[in-house]
Amino acid sequence: MARQEDFLAVRPSGNPISAKGLMGMFDSKDLVAESSELIKTHKIEIYGEIAYAVFTLNEIFSYKGNQNKDLSTYTCIFKNVNGTWKYSWMQRSQGSTDMTTWE
Amino acid sequence: MARQEDFLAVRPSGNPISAKGLMGMFDSKDLVAESSELIKTHKIEIYGEIAYAVFTLNEIFSYKGNQNKDLSTYTCIFKNVNGTWKYSWMQRSQGSTDMTTWE
Repeated sequence: MARQEDFLAVRPSGNPISAKGLMGMFDSKDLVAESSELIKTHKIEIYGEIAYAVFTLNEIFSYKGNQNKDLSTYTCIFKNVNGTWKYSWMQRSQGSTDMTTWE
Repeated sequence: MARQEDFLAVRPSGNPISAKGLMGMFDSKDLVAESSELIKTHKIEIYGEIAYAVFTLNEIFSYKGNQNKDLSTYTCIFKNVNGTWKYSWMQRSQGSTDMTTWE
């Protein structure tokens, strides 16, 4: 999905990463994605040209050779620009989501 | 600040807590707040009745007797209801934000 130019993702640490920085982690092979599965959508709200969504992904990936199986929860904000929904902002939790807490 | 009825905060773990649940932590004295200082606002965007803000707080608090000094980054979504801005949603990072990464 497209991103606005000032898009950033807030990492679990509280530090930001740009789309370019994230792509760089893939390009360097430090980060190797195996799968990313949508487990549950907690909320979607659309207000005209602005929307936000909250969901948990099951992400399997290797970081510098170590495999991670994360259940991470995301809050994402989208803006509709000329008919295309673009990511405006994203914040990702640690990979420790307990799905029973969302029931 | 007021909250919408379906407000939840996503904790660093990825698990949610309701406003009532958060208040319960204070009421039980498990959580004792000392101070909460706004260190930096990274972004504020307002689109009519919807807004979002991203900022880092320096929070000093005790949890079950152990003092924490956290630099936590928040993504918050607000909705204007009859002239009052209300919290719709919030996600909080770990307390490990490195402010130099936001420069």
